[in-house]
Amino acid sequence: MKNILLIGAGRSASTLIKYLLDNSGKENWKITVGDISLELAKQKIKNHQNAQAIAFDVNDEQQRVKEIAKVDLVISMLPATMHLDVAKECLKQKKHLVTASYVSKQMHELDGEAKKAGVIFLNEIGLDPGIDHLSAMKIIDEVKAKGGKMITFRSYCGGLVAPESNDNPWGYKFTWNPRSVVMAGQSGDSAGATAQYLENGKIKYVPYTRLFSNVETIKVSWGSGSSPLTTRFEAYANRDSLSYVDMYGLQDVKNMLRGTLRMPGFCKAWNAFIQLGLTDDNCKVSDSENTTYAGLIESFLPEGPGNVKKKLAKFLREKDNSPVMKKLDWLGIMKNQKIGLKDSSPAEILLDLLLKKWSLKEKDKDMVVMQHEFEYMAEGKSKKAEVKRITSSLVVIGDDQVNTAMSKTVGLPLGISTKLILNGKINLRGVWVPTVKEIYNPVLAELENFGIHFIEKHD
Amino acid sequence: MKNILLIGAGRSASTLIKYLLDNSGKENWKITVGDISLELAKQKIKNHQNAQAIAFDVNDEQQRVKEIAKVDLVISMLPATMHLDVAKECLKQKKHLVTASYVSKQMHELDGEAKKAGVIFLNEIGLDPGIDHLSAMKIIDEVKAKGGKMITFRSYCGGLVAPESNDNPWGYKFTWNPRSVVMAGQSGDSAGATAQYLENGKIKYVPYTRLFSNVETIKVSWGSGSSPLTTRFEAYANRDSLSYVDMYGLQDVKNMLRGTLRMPGFCKAWNAFIQLGLTDDNCKVSDSENTTYAGLIESFLPEGPGNVKKKLAKFLREKDNSPVMKKLDWLGIMKNQKIGLKDSSPAEILLDLLLKKWSLKEKDKDMVVMQHEFEYMAEGKSKKAEVKRITSSLVVIGDDQVNTAMSKTVGLPLGISTKLILNGKINLRGVWVPTVKEIYNPVLAELENFGIHFIEKHD
Repeated sequence: MKNILLIGAGRSASTLIKYLLDNSGKENWKITVGDISLELAKQKIKNHQNAQAIAFDVNDEQQRVKEIAKVDLVISMLPATMHLDVAKECLKQKKHLVTASYVSKQMHELDGEAKKAGVIFLNEIGLDPGIDHLSAMKIIDEVKAKGGKMITFRSYCGGLVAPESNDNPWGYKFTWNPRSVVMAGQSGDSAGATAQYLENGKIKYVPYTRLFSNVETIKVSWGSGSSPLTTRFEAYANRDSLSYVDMYGLQDVKNMLRGTLRMPGFCKAWNAFIQLGLTDDNCKVSDSENTTYAGLIESFLPEGPGNVKKKLAKFLREKDNSPVMKKLDWLGIMKNQKIGLKDSSPAEILLDLLLKKWSLKEKDKDMVVMQHEFEYMAEGKSKKAEVKRITSSLVVIGDDQVNTAMSKTVGLPLGISTKLILNGKINLRGVWVPTVKEIYNPVLAELENFGIHFIEKHD
Repeated sequence: MKNILLIGAGRSASTLIKYLLDNSGKENWKITVGDISLELAKQKIKNHQNAQAIAFDVNDEQQRVKEIAKVDLVISMLPATMHLDVAKECLKQKKHLVTASYVSKQMHELDGEAKKAGVIFLNEIGLDPGIDHLSAMKIIDEVKAKGGKMITFRSYCGGLVAPESNDNPWGYKFTWNPRSVVMAGQSGDSAGATAQYLENGKIKYVPYTRLFSNVETIKVSWGSGSSPLTTRFEAYANRDSLSYVDMYGLQDVKNMLRGTLRMPGFCKAWNAFIQLGLTDDNCKVSDSENTTYAGLIESFLPEGPGNVKKKLAKFLREKDNSPVMKKLDWLGIMKNQKIGLKDSSPAEILLDLLLKKWSLKEKDKDMVVMQHEFEYMAEGKSKKAEVKRITSSLVVIGDDQVNTAMSKTVGLPLGISTKLILNGKINLRGVWVPTVKEIYNPVLAELENFGIHFIEKHD
């Protein structure tokens, strides 16, 4: 019998919990789901015989020590900044740890101790980071094994709304942390942020103010069979693409980009908010409670003739009924309606409005899209005309409001790798991310059973 | 005999120290100048009989207690964040404190205790903040006393290079904290920053990305006599103008702006750096040591034909030899020369380059310009045609590299108010800024003796 402690039972843990419960009989697992809300934890385990729900406060040291002592492996679904206390306790008690978060500097520094303790701290095994590592490294290693030299790697991912639920002019609803969407491209703790990537062998820097006007169009083929659908998306660059050169062993690569996918037209309209200044989270709007949306927008616009809509269109160099203006109008930012939020920043006001307009409805389904684009020279080739291309694409549609595409693609890699660790199929020790065969092969294989499979196109 | 402790003997303290030494005989003062560098402190007091230099470390609690015990009043020229320990010790020992820094929240909270201790903590008594408060409040109070209603207040200040030393295309050299100039408009600790001011009774917000394209032209008359010079400057908005409405008691005001002055053309060229992304201090340039300036600029530019100059001109929508391009070219940012700075941010690289190009030469003189613009309705008047205007202007040219205009305008108000406190001419107690008659009248009067006087124009 193996014991597993899962910390954090929020929305994105739903499919993970289902996977753990479904496998608990065959695998002989006892699962403890801990959350700050006992109710939420209880709700998720549905009285399953192999599971128990507990109220768990990660800041309670005594409880950490006690609960970790009872188990063989801990899965932390907490925000990344909260993993460290758990990781240190796992070290002391020699327990494995699995997370979907980026490896922080502090986590990285535990590598030696984790090796000594004979445990694995496996991180970045969700969707992005997670499935991106698994699927990209599989192809990178295959090309390398045949003597090929990778010259281009571009990787895109987006959490979107499924086509059947796409009923607003933005083609977007929140399927993931809404605050992160509003703050996208800004750094969390500092002034400004600059995206970095490689293009034709040169580093490119794009500051926040140009991020959403510097977009590419990406064509994604999906659906299986002989007539796949092709859908266009647009992509803006993620903050840091350069660190993946080393992580993926792509020292020869000339083009290296990681981007975020949106429906076409989204970025140009979002850029309006950035140019206006509405994404600033560090100033307060004066008397924000009683200011109207129209008044707020006027305050960000240069003086001029006409109403707020005319002024906004002029400022953005848009026609009154352009797609950008339609998107902005639909959100209600030009309405004479009171904001009703005390002491708020422009970003907080925008977030509050978007939460009302971009929420998934009860029957809505979400969609995760990921696509990698590779270019390589096969062994012995060097001419430009001989460049080979591989495209690897994944589209996942959510089942319902619980097993969303996001919850599935984040949770299943976590669950599968947990099983592989407990069964001794993953025997690595220390701090790892899933860029190695020993992890990506079996995880990708089992993901196929859940309809999570990449379509590869070689040409 | 009165004892004064001055902490911090840097460049901006030169004129202040001279003032204190020059007055020490007549006033019967003993002056202790403390600096982390004993050498610097010694150099500044020039073996004056009424002064001693000491090595002073503000973080050394024992020394703080000991040195503050010996004096009647402390002047802190340290950075604003370092005043608090000094202020708390002054409270305990019931000593006055004078600074040129903005009143922080923590300083503000000491008001009650300072009153109880029977001491004054006088802040914001340098140039800006300082002389701006003194000179603006004098006119605001005069207008109010006559029953007038202030409807417009705009106030501008700039630390510039004197016309005779203005020998570069930017019309600018560093006369004040260079880092603050590069970071101007960005907030120190957070993403983005938004300037706020009042225009026609409405609040206006201008985000950092538009700050330097949202400029006004300001005409300043200077020199005395019948034919004053008129010089044009341009001004960009400071972060927060709105808090001055309450501070100056201007609740009826419809236009309220505080701005920073530059020579015409400066802002458009500086805006090129912001649009490129070169003012970002929160990302590192990859291998910045071996990258060339031209390479760095290319990395920030979209791909396109031609050399870096062509691409930059196209990006900025400038002609190859436009004033903006000439300014940029003069700085050498398009040269194939290695940057030579390890592990640096774009802002650090820009600062390093500007320090080489914008430094005052040995014979150079600096210049401080301040101008307030008021509009008011005289008592009983209400028609637009009856609006009265007052312009109040100050231009100060530095004597030399030691008694710069900046050092004079920062140091003299500090020195004069110190004298007034020690002589019992300022009897306020608690935490103050110099917006009251009891302070501004005598300080402004004595500033006249040093050639620091405002020219008022009424129409």
